[in-house]
Amino acid sequence: MSHNSFGHLFRITTWGESHGPAIGCVVDGCPPRLALSEADIQPFLDLRRPGQSRFVTQRQEPDQVRILSGVFEGMTTGTPIALMIENQDQRSRDYGEIKDRFRPGHADLTYELKYGIRDYRGGGRSSARETAMRVAGGAVARKVLGPGVSIRAALVQLGDDRIDRASWDWSALGENDFFCPDRAAAARWEQRLLEVRKSGSSLGAVIEVVAEGAPPGLGAPIYGKLDADIAAALMGINAVKGVEIGDGFAAASLTGEGNADAMRMGPGGRVHFGDNHAGGILGGISTGQPIVARFAVKPTSSILTSRHSVDRFGQDVEVLTKGRHDPCVGIRAVPVGEAMLALVLADHLLRHRAQNPDAPSEARLPRN
Amino acid sequence: MSHNSFGHLFRITTWGESHGPAIGCVVDGCPPRLALSEADIQPFLDLRRPGQSRFVTQRQEPDQVRILSGVFEGMTTGTPIALMIENQDQRSRDYGEIKDRFRPGHADLTYELKYGIRDYRGGGRSSARETAMRVAGGAVARKVLGPGVSIRAALVQLGDDRIDRASWDWSALGENDFFCPDRAAAARWEQRLLEVRKSGSSLGAVIEVVAEGAPPGLGAPIYGKLDADIAAALMGINAVKGVEIGDGFAAASLTGEGNADAMRMGPGGRVHFGDNHAGGILGGISTGQPIVARFAVKPTSSILTSRHSVDRFGQDVEVLTKGRHDPCVGIRAVPVGEAMLALVLADHLLRHRAQNPDAPSEARLPRN
Amino acid sequence: MSHNSFGHLFRITTWGESHGPAIGCVVDGCPPRLALSEADIQPFLDLRRPGQSRFVTQRQEPDQVRILSGVFEGMTTGTPIALMIENQDQRSRDYGEIKDRFRPGHADLTYELKYGIRDYRGGGRSSARETAMRVAGGAVARKVLGPGVSIRAALVQLGDDRIDRASWDWSALGENDFFCPDRAAAARWEQRLLEVRKSGSSLGAVIEVVAEGAPPGLGAPIYGKLDADIAAALMGINAVKGVEIGDGFAAASLTGEGNADAMRMGPGGRVHFGDNHAGGILGGISTGQPIVARFAVKPTSSILTSRHSVDRFGQDVEVLTKGRHDPCVGIRAVPVGEAMLALVLADHLLRHRAQNPDAPSEARLPRN
Amino acid sequence: MSHNSFGHLFRITTWGESHGPAIGCVVDGCPPRLALSEADIQPFLDLRRPGQSRFVTQRQEPDQVRILSGVFEGMTTGTPIALMIENQDQRSRDYGEIKDRFRPGHADLTYELKYGIRDYRGGGRSSARETAMRVAGGAVARKVLGPGVSIRAALVQLGDDRIDRASWDWSALGENDFFCPDRAAAARWEQRLLEVRKSGSSLGAVIEVVAEGAPPGLGAPIYGKLDADIAAALMGINAVKGVEIGDGFAAASLTGEGNADAMRMGPGGRVHFGDNHAGGILGGISTGQPIVARFAVKPTSSILTSRHSVDRFGQDVEVLTKGRHDPCVGIRAVPVGEAMLALVLADHLLRHRAQNPDAPSEARLPRN
Repeated sequence: MSHNSFGHLFRITTWGESHGPAIGCVVDGCPPRLALSEADIQPFLDLRRPGQSRFVTQRQEPDQVRILSGVFEGMTTGTPIALMIENQDQRSRDYGEIKDRFRPGHADLTYELKYGIRDYRGGGRSSARETAMRVAGGAVARKVLGPGVSIRAALVQLGDDRIDRASWDWSALGENDFFCPDRAAAARWEQRLLEVRKSGSSLGAVIEVVAEGAPPGLGAPIYGKLDADIAAALMGINAVKGVEIGDGFAAASLTGEGNADAMRMGPGGRVHFGDNHAGGILGGISTGQPIVARFAVKPTSSILTSRHSVDRFGQDVEVLTKGRHDPCVGIRAVPVGEAMLALVLADHLLRHRAQNPDAPSEARLPRN
Repeated sequence: MSHNSFGHLFRITTWGESHGPAIGCVVDGCPPRLALSEADIQPFLDLRRPGQSRFVTQRQEPDQVRILSGVFEGMTTGTPIALMIENQDQRSRDYGEIKDRFRPGHADLTYELKYGIRDYRGGGRSSARETAMRVAGGAVARKVLGPGVSIRAALVQLGDDRIDRASWDWSALGENDFFCPDRAAAARWEQRLLEVRKSGSSLGAVIEVVAEGAPPGLGAPIYGKLDADIAAALMGINAVKGVEIGDGFAAASLTGEGNADAMRMGPGGRVHFGDNHAGGILGGISTGQPIVARFAVKPTSSILTSRHSVDRFGQDVEVLTKGRHDPCVGIRAVPVGEAMLALVLADHLLRHRAQNPDAPSEARLPRN
Repeated sequence: MSHNSFGHLFRITTWGESHGPAIGCVVDGCPPRLALSEADIQPFLDLRRPGQSRFVTQRQEPDQVRILSGVFEGMTTGTPIALMIENQDQRSRDYGEIKDRFRPGHADLTYELKYGIRDYRGGGRSSARETAMRVAGGAVARKVLGPGVSIRAALVQLGDDRIDRASWDWSALGENDFFCPDRAAAARWEQRLLEVRKSGSSLGAVIEVVAEGAPPGLGAPIYGKLDADIAAALMGINAVKGVEIGDGFAAASLTGEGNADAMRMGPGGRVHFGDNHAGGILGGISTGQPIVARFAVKPTSSILTSRHSVDRFGQDVEVLTKGRHDPCVGIRAVPVGEAMLALVLADHLLRHRAQNPDAPSEARLPRN
Repeated sequence: MSHNSFGHLFRITTWGESHGPAIGCVVDGCPPRLALSEADIQPFLDLRRPGQSRFVTQRQEPDQVRILSGVFEGMTTGTPIALMIENQDQRSRDYGEIKDRFRPGHADLTYELKYGIRDYRGGGRSSARETAMRVAGGAVARKVLGPGVSIRAALVQLGDDRIDRASWDWSALGENDFFCPDRAAAARWEQRLLEVRKSGSSLGAVIEVVAEGAPPGLGAPIYGKLDADIAAALMGINAVKGVEIGDGFAAASLTGEGNADAMRMGPGGRVHFGDNHAGGILGGISTGQPIVARFAVKPTSSILTSRHSVDRFGQDVEVLTKGRHDPCVGIRAVPVGEAMLALVLADHLLRHRAQNPDAPSEARLPRN
């Protein structure tokens, strides 16, 4: 059962509300004797942290993570790793006016209908603040995957403005506030988002996540397919409405010849693929090629524009969300997307190893 | 753990290979005292059955399902329901030539790399034949959901040709070979697919699935979100490369005002939504509106055109797949998509009931 | 969730009723490339099979198992293994009189209260017939464990008559109808059970299961402890009311010095234990010593003696169970106990390997 | 998967080591709108708390629990409930001498063999300190079960000295340091345990747990049987070596007539049982009678008597455990046993409700 847990052999369970005393997670199933300290986790949290540019919420949270268990003298012990971040800048007064009203596009109404009670402060459990723990858990997952596996994400579309893929440069990500790999696009986006923020509106985005170096064989057909688990992982991020693997929806417009990635033997007995329409996954199992996924984030629902809504008592009301919000929640979803892919891959690596301990770590033929 | 099981409280476990003696499934967790017989399941299987039109594989399979357990005197007993279909038209001779070669775009290579062995006959376990059992399980799931919940799917895009949504007519589906709700599009597709088939190629497609009448409150945040589970369910269908909920990827191009569905109180204390950009799900929980999902199916990889590939021994080869294949596997994925959505909803209905037995079955306010 | 599934990475899901058309199971998670055929499974089923001596039910069932999937050319493929046994000697007429009455000591009443419906024929799903599939699944589990792990069980107590442990001889088991390792006890039991059967009564029993050769490190603290999983596995066998590991309840009467197994280094860096009070498990993890468990089976509830009971309509009735029953169900529980232990160990072997791929297969020190 | 999680729909995940900064748990799946505060949990922790009498460890721990999430304005919200206790009296210096040596009867060796690393301070994760979080989780489980279900436990045997069941008086438990329901036995035990403690030895014990008021229908055959889950829950408590339901091992010595509980209709259409040999469970499902279980705890392994052992380097050594230990760990296992039974019943209550929402809450006939 998965209410608040993700993964099977490598599993993260998160807890905490936006304005409670703390948020945290338990990472269970981590192999022993991996070097791990707060310093391995904090840099990823810092990327997701609020208050860092004009384009993300101005809530000030240092987001200092503490390891409370599962690590002894700098090494994982195989027992559950508890991580915790204390909430600091809770400023609950901002949210009093939405106590009884449902913000359109938010989980306010559905929590009310499901549970009959909700912690309305900052969205409570449904706040994107919970994703900080995914990022923390993802940092541990990277340790499980080891240095040979690289997982990176980038914003490839802001509103309806896409990057030019020919200009893709991973090193550009650190130079702008958008995790954008195309410098020209980043410049356009800066202008656009300043206007959008000023107008009290918001924009959606598309993020691409790429894992390189993952071994072939990850994925458990039929109902633990790697792409199915990635789809669940990414669709489960707040505000995500679509997920693609490889060519994704564009594959529908291709012909069979155009879509299927041809193969040839390469050096060292490695299978070489001409293309990667499949996004590194065939039949739900990784091929050893880069794993490529994209997800679409809807525009922030918390905006300064007044909209029709209803309240808990069944009355029509108008709702305008003040508070401190991201004009594009997609930006801070970039490190979250990376973390979710890391969590999926770490879980599948352990699962694969359990059933197939002698499977090759690269796509080599003949297998034996 | 989910290798070959799907769902938690309402769970289906499937087994069987394309050319083994039979395929089957176990449906576990079904509530007792629901009327159930083979006649409730067979019509759905008949929709997915091969050999029914020029546009699907000519393999002849009556696909007669048998209930082997869990039903007594026409009623479910609460114990596991075993379903089985004996394979008839196995024609293994067609597949000898791919015994040692990997068809591009197929799971042949990844099964080999993962397991070091594979039942190559007809794709073995990776064959879409397995989806017959999802359709059978989905028929049981519909019983759990009851007559108030309707789940229907349609083909909305073939290759790059989309339907005109203004012409949507559910009653058109039975009149063409494509489950197409737009009669004009169906006519175009017929021409197009005949040509594609003749040329030995194939096309992709997009399917839309809609559930009406599902109660609000389905979905278990944070890691059992309804949309995340739907994403996994649909992405796990053979050849699927993308999944969307509501506006999906198009939501990335909207503004916050444009995307968030405004609410007003309607008759009988029911919440009325002006639009359904969200596809019936907010914060991972159903709103009571129609649940709308789409998925993209890549073009059939088994085509009559020769392509570069490799074999088990690490040699370059050319592969041309004879056999009997669907020129567009997306067509037969339509009833499979319906079934997967039914399976997800039935599971979540039981989960929701367990934790929230007194939650309302409609989006009414005030809740109590 | 575990309604009808047992295990996690190596998981068996069973289905079927005593008098339905067949019983079966799906074994999921089995590693690939293990040699497996019906001939590997049938001998274990033959040990559990009814109709083989005067001391077990006279129902005639050949219990021929068929492998329907997951095996290709004599080898497992890593995909789910479906096993099925068709029911032959169903003789439903024997059970008509208990259709509306609840046999004391049986699941009749509890199924009625839980489900409001039950397949009363032969106990339906609650019949010990289901254990045939555990035995079949256990035979596959033995393949996973490999020839280095031996799992054997014996009847060590019939009614209140215990064996003399000093006379234990595994080779005696095949010489009597009781799986009894003490020839003198077997002779006494034969007399006793003949009398009991004649009088229309029944007896309980205690079974001991021993696994030798299992590696250290199996077990996942805190809530997947090996002993906890063994306890669940054995307590879940029909009619079992108690489970012990090692000294079990007798350990309560020992002192700390008397109970704790002292250690010394032995040849080849192996840890040598003076005793095995712990039954091969410390802190929920296997030590590498023999794993020893015992379970108590209550006397058969289906007896020829009339007893007070009630019926579905809330009326007092007298119940006398004719039919064909075992005077001591404990006898046929012996191969079932072995199978359950094999299932637990195979699951834990895979789990251990996933998290600790480089752990030693013997209790050697220093570890590295 | 269950490494450090227990339960399915109502699930507890614990974390923390004996001498780390804190221990904690996440309780997931709790229904919303239950009144809950620290004051509901603390009294149960106080019963288990160390340092309260001469017969338990003198470690001083206030064990003040904090609720960090999942409760809003005094009510559960349906989201995960995080509980935490900060460790205070860690006194790590006591344990330096066992850093490299394995205490006989402890998990030291098995953790080393499994993980190749262990937090040796106070037993780390294998310490009974972890059971504090079970007790905390059990307090939440009681809220789910409601005031109609009472769960109580008592020590019924210390060493080889059993209570006189005819003298059972629940009100005696608070009058002695043993949770003993028999005042005469408590007096004898006080003498005995003082001597044992003085001699540096320890004693085992047997605990009986009784749940009254639980509805019929709890338990999910075949592999989620209520008795199987209780067996796992109790066997998983530190130092437990045996578990019984109802008559337990004594049932093996009964005849079929002697064991099966006869039934008669009682007032109000309720089924009345003459006896309760079954311990309230038939076919793995609760009958509505009191649920009765017992478990045996081995004598404390940490004793002041020197014993043969080995160290990490493969050398023979002598081990004598100083530190502060319970002369009978069975005493403090009493509230832990209650908690585990509460956890099992709460989980099964939700599971039962999901599949059988209209099942009766009492054993009444006719059912409808």
